This record gives sequence, C-alpha cells and structure tokens, in this order.
Amino acid sequence: MRDVNVGMVGLGTVGGSTLRILDENAAEIERKLGFRLRVRAASSLEIEARSERDGRLLTRVWQEVVEHPEVEIVVELIGGTTVAYEVIRSALERGRPVVTANKELLGLHGAELAQLAAEHNASLSMEASVGGGIPILQVLREGIAGDRIEALYGILNGTSNFILTEMEKSGAPLASILAEAQKRGYAEANPTADVEGYDARSKLAILTAFCFGVRVPTDAIFRQGITRLLPVDFQYAHRLGYTIRLLGAATPGPEGLGLYVRPVLVPQAAILSKVEGSYNAIWVKGAYGEDTLYYGRGAGRPTGVAVVSDIMRAARDLQHRSTLRAPAFSFWKLETVSRAGIESQMRPYFLRFLVADRVGIIAQLASVLAQEHISIDAILQEPCGEKENLPFVITVEPTSERAMTTALEKTHGLDFLREPPLALPMELALGG
Amino acid sequence: MRDVNVGMVGLGTVGGSTLRILDENAAEIERKLGFRLRVRAASSLEIEARSERDGRLLTRVWQEVVEHPEVEIVVELIGGTTVAYEVIRSALERGRPVVTANKELLGLHGAELAQLAAEHNASLSMEASVGGGIPILQVLREGIAGDRIEALYGILNGTSNFILTEMEKSGAPLASILAEAQKRGYAEANPTADVEGYDARSKLAILTAFCFGVRVPTDAIFRQGITRLLPVDFQYAHRLGYTIRLLGAATPGPEGLGLYVRPVLVPQAAILSKVEGSYNAIWVKGAYGEDTLYYGRGAGRPTGVAVVSDIMRAARDLQHRSTLRAPAFSFWKLETVSRAGIESQMRPYFLRFLVADRVGIIAQLASVLAQEHISIDAILQEPCGEKENLPFVITVEPTSERAMTTALEKTHGLDFLREPPLALPMELALGG
Repeated sequence: MRDVNVGMVGLGTVGGSTLRILDENAAEIERKLGFRLRVRAASSLEIEARSERDGRLLTRVWQEVVEHPEVEIVVELIGGTTVAYEVIRSALERGRPVVTANKELLGLHGAELAQLAAEHNASLSMEASVGGGIPILQVLREGIAGDRIEALYGILNGTSNFILTEMEKSGAPLASILAEAQKRGYAEANPTADVEGYDARSKLAILTAFCFGVRVPTDAIFRQGITRLLPVDFQYAHRLGYTIRLLGAATPGPEGLGLYVRPVLVPQAAILSKVEGSYNAIWVKGAYGEDTLYYGRGAGRPTGVAVVSDIMRAARDLQHRSTLRAPAFSFWKLETVSRAGIESQMRPYFLRFLVADRVGIIAQLASVLAQEHISIDAILQEPCGEKENLPFVITVEPTSERAMTTALEKTHGLDFLREPPLALPMELALGG
Repeated sequence: MRDVNVGMVGLGTVGGSTLRILDENAAEIERKLGFRLRVRAASSLEIEARSERDGRLLTRVWQEVVEHPEVEIVVELIGGTTVAYEVIRSALERGRPVVTANKELLGLHGAELAQLAAEHNASLSMEASVGGGIPILQVLREGIAGDRIEALYGILNGTSNFILTEMEKSGAPLASILAEAQKRGYAEANPTADVEGYDARSKLAILTAFCFGVRVPTDAIFRQGITRLLPVDFQYAHRLGYTIRLLGAATPGPEGLGLYVRPVLVPQAAILSKVEGSYNAIWVKGAYGEDTLYYGRGAGRPTGVAVVSDIMRAARDLQHRSTLRAPAFSFWKLETVSRAGIESQMRPYFLRFLVADRVGIIAQLASVLAQEHISIDAILQEPCGEKENLPFVITVEPTSERAMTTALEKTHGLDFLREPPLALPMELALGG
C-alpha cells in the first residue's frame, strides 16, 4: 500500500516525542501497518528558518502544514484553546483527519469539533488527551464496547497523585512537596491546573462522553483541589482502612449522571489505592465485564505513543476508506449533563475539623449534622499536643451531597473552627 | 446501515454470557455501532430440539450455523481442539469472520488459522482467549501500536492467582485451598491446566505473537506450576520485600525472546504484586510509553464482553469493507521462537530448600553453586522447630537459567534434601 503523509503542528514535549517515535520506530510501525507513515511537514515557533529537506518541510507557519497539498493527517500538539481551535477546524474543514492531545480544547469544544469532523467525513482522534500513554479511549471505543459502563473512576492527574503519595509516605506538608516537585520538573511553575483539579476535569469530560455518550460542559463538573489536605488526613484515613486520592468520577444517580473531581477516601484494598507517584489509572465498572483497570504514565513523552497510535488508526482508515468506522462523534450526543447529578448521590463522608479546643465542640457539630439528618458513624481523635489547632475526624453514614453542602454552610458561624471543615466522600464502590 | 447477522457455536458459560449481552444490551450496542447485531443462529449440544423462532435458529448441529446463508460472523465458543478447529476452518473458508475464545486451539494452530483467514479475506478475532474481560489484544493491536514492546509480564490464570493470594493471606497449604476453591466452583474438578500453567502458557503464546510478531509453539515455553509452593515461601518472600505470583513473561535476551510461565518473586512495590484473587493483569513495558498495566476478571461471564466487542469490531469492518484493516495475521510471522531464549537470561534467584538438618549443609550447597559460578547473596532461615523438614532460603546473584538448571541437577545426590530445591527467579524488572 502507498505511504500516508502526516503533518504536525507543535513540537514541544509530546510533539517531539511523537516525531521521535515516528522516525526511530518507523520499521515497527510499517510492519504493523503494511505501509509507511511519512512526516511530510511540521511547524513550530521554535523553528528559526523555513527549510525543506529529505521530503520534510519545517516551518514556523501552521497554515503551511494544514494546507499542504500532500498532508493527509493533521496532528495538533500546540495546546491552548485559540490557535489550536483554528488549526483543528481548518484541517477538518478540508476533510483531513485530526489527531490531538488538547484536553482543554476538547473539554470546551469537543462536541462541536466531533460534529464538524463527521460533517466532513474526517476523524477526530484524542487518545493523548487523557491518561498519557494509557489507551483508555481506544478501550472504551472498541475494546470493551460490548459492555454498558456503570461507573468510571480515575486518577487523571499525575502531578497531584505524586504530591498526595509523597505526603502519604513522608508526612511532609503539601507546600514543601510541591516546591520540591517544581524544582525537579514534575510540577509546573503555575500548578493551579494540576492541584486544583482543572486538568483532571477536562479529562473527565472527555471520558464521560466516551463512556455515557453525553456532552459534558466542564464547568458543570463539581471540582475540588488537593491544596487543603494535611498529612494528618492520611493518618486518619489509614486508621479507617483507606487512603486519599484525587479522583475524577462519573456515576449514575437518581438525578442523572453525577460527576466530580475531588480528593476522596479510597479503600486500601481497592486496586486504585495502589496507584502511586505520577502514574494515572482509570477504573471502569461494567454491567457485564465487572471491573477493569488501565494504568500507566499520565503525561510527558509516553503520551507520544498515544499520538502515534491514533495516527496509525487514522491512516488505516484512510487506506481502507473506513473513516467513520468507529467515530468519536457517535459517543457525543446533544444531551447535556448538569451539575445536579451529584447533589442527590449518597455517600458516607469523612469530615476533618481543625479547631481551637474547648468544651462542647462535638455537641455543636452533632447538632448541625442532625439538622440535615446526617448520622454520625464515628469520631476519631489521635493524641495531639496542639490545643489551638487540634485536628479530629467525624465519619458519617451515607448522605447526599446536597445535605452535606448545607451542613457545611451551617458550620460557618462556629467560632472554634480554625478553617472550614474538609469533607471527603468515602468511595466504597471501588471494592476491596 | 443494515443489520449484521451473527451465528454462535457453543452456549456454555462464555457463550451464554455473550448471548445475554447481545440480547439485553442491544440498544447500547446499536447506539455505538449505528446498526443492529442479530443472533440469527446458535448451536449447542444442550439444545434438545431444533427450533426457529423470532428469526433465530436453535440447533444441535454446528454446521447449520456455520453454513447458514444469512450468518455473516461466526462465533466459536465450544472450546477444545477438534470440533472447534473444524468450525473455524469451515467458517474462514467461506470467507466469514470468526470470533473465538479458544486459547488452546490458537496456541496450537493460531498462525495457520490466521493465515487461512487472510487468504479468505476474513478476520480472526480472539480477544476472549486471553485475560477474560481485559481488552489486551485490542490494546496491543491498536491502542499502543505506536510503541515497541520490550517486555510483557502477566498474571494470566485467575485460579492460580486466587490460590496463591489465599495461601499468602491464610498460610494454609495449597491442597486445602484448592479443595475449597473446587467446592465453591472457582477451580475445575481437574485443576491441572490451571495450577500447572498450561492455560497460562497458551495465553502467553497468543500475547507474544501480538507483542513481538512471532509464532510461538506452546511447548517451546518453559513451564512450571504452583503445586510445589509452601506457605513458608511467602514468609521468606515477604522478608525480602517480595511476594510470589504465577507469571507468564516474554522478554528479549541475548539468545532471542525468553518465554516462561512459572511462579516468580515480584517486588512488593510493583503494581503486579497488588493483583489479588481471581483477577488477571498484564504489564507491558514499551520503549517509548514506559509501563502500562491492564487489569480485570480473567474468566467466566466477563469474557462475554470481549466476545461481543470482537463481534462489533468484525461487524464494523464488514459494513465498511475494511476486514484487513488491522488483521491479527500481521502479528503472526513465520519466525518461530525456541526454548533457548530463556537459557541465557540472567536473573537473581530465590532457592528454597527443605532439609533434614545436620552439619555441613550450607557448605555442600555453596560448593554446588560455586561450581556453576553462582554467587550467594544471602542465606535466610526463620526460627523453626522442625529438624527433619527444615525450610531455608538462599538468594543468589543474577545467573543464567542454564547455570541454575545445571546446579539444581547437581543437588540430586544430596541425601539431606527432603525434596528437590525450589528455584524462583526474582523479577527486578517489574519496578518498584
């Protein structure tokens, strides 16, 4: 079969890794495909002078890639939501399949771009946007397509997982671990997207579309970061047989799909609790296949494998004229998910308080919880010399997010609280 | 798009689960595919009388399914290597795509059947033959196709993993755990295929073909079962920071690919060590994507998801006339793997002895090891009252399988040994 020509826009970490794999691993790729992939043109603002050598154009101008007459597949790896949006639209409008890693853009405009792809009989592939080198979208699209997904839980941000597992092991506070991670290049100078859950939220929106066939506006997803966690939270969690992870979850409830990104208590016997360091993992519960887990590096160079595998899939479909064989768009319906889904879901909660110790605290907190019909399960307090910054934990029986939110609001006036209570759901559904 | 008609041969555990999913989950399947799957005919020796109702033929005669004029995809789920072989050949010769779960048959005749499929422009799908509900073949075929696999390690037999993890937790001997597992239906009346590694070996042959593009005769794979393991082996393994799992492994070495199915020491920090009970998991190390892990139920009804997902893939390719888009056969080359690969691979070993205690034992064993240039790393002996059945462990520095085999043979004449030494490699490559 004839060669297939690829055009690349963006040569950063993932783009560079993609180019390296396409060049170094060309023989293996050809063995699997039965034909060759050629990078015909690539653009990057790092390229100083336009050049054309050995049949490859290098340019600063992305239009020269997207509009190049020989380019058949366009790979967008510049990130961001402005130029990248133009790149993808421009390629799709020319009927050229697009491969992208741009979770932020897809979280915002995924349904629209998938629609555009379908209209122009082009494919839009996005494996690299979620879970780095883990082929989770291919798994959901075809690997376990026969199942009906009942729940999805994922560790979707490697930086946060690295910070949490370091805190768990070392007992050091978040700020010092984050500073160390930044020094070693594991965390960005501005860590907000990672530690506040924005990055995980975009990924959850994409996963939810693939799992449940719905459009998910990212800002409809409940989001809570990890910055308020203290090492003592892990001590209490361990005492209860749990650990703490930042999860993205999509689970059906009485008011529709409930979505969140937040730190939660994960049973120590659950396989997700074993995911440490900068790894990502996605745990899927199916109606027929029971639970499966997909685990790997969540970012960086391994993501290049996801991009190349997507290019290979798009190239196979070009050769076989089967572009709409298993399109992403069939997973993106117009039904839109709202924030309400989470409000009525019932879970037990772990409530950690930081108080100035005095008589009657438990009585007052118990009264606030009782007003919302929330039953206390246990009160835990480790020995601690601190009287002015005393941490302790109350666990409560399954209650709705709505009741919990109201109860937390009612604690605002309590003057013994050094900070608002930290409420983490306990995810029994994860098994173990 | 038009409906696609499926014919099923065999309605046992996996067949019954497949039929149930196709019937119960039909709406979800249609949503994903854009067309319907219909089970047009099914055969089973459990069917007492031939019937045709609601457009579905039920018969005892498999030929009526395979030769049915409307059947487009044939699903073979009867198992075994005789009739199943005829079913698959007959379907492929008619140019009908085949979906099978038959690891034993594929381990024996996979390359030949893949070749036959290619000649008749039909696909041969086998997701259900390995890892139950885990879509590992789809992952290797497309999900991480861009990578070059450097090593694969898998927990490929749920029954053995259940027995080992029970032994680890309870300290009970294998025989009593196996008896309990048989009573509860977790293990077959004849457990040989599971506990002696034959089942895992067939699966490893298929995985190796997908990962490395080679044909693997199953009997070229080094195989050792779990029946000689004692609870005390776990105690020693834990002391060293390891656990014990029955793994299938494919790793390149100086004399080509080294393949084995055997119990090995897995570092406790490695994610594979966290796989408990009847779960399966496959850990893959790629040149670019680093390590990924795929985890799920290894057998029984979840396997139906793998069958249905394969049927969906075959049906998409029928609709789009893209049968040879990503054929299994491109992964099966004529190059054949021999047993020699493992002989020159270097690994540290855990040697457990069971002896009648007396003076000079260590000196004699050390002398045998020294003759093969094997260096002792540590000698471990837990306090134990048993003088006539005393277990102890020697760990040795990395040595070749060949040297280890020779050394073990030379221990045959040592009259203080109550049984041949148990030698388990220590798999440092699994990380942690």
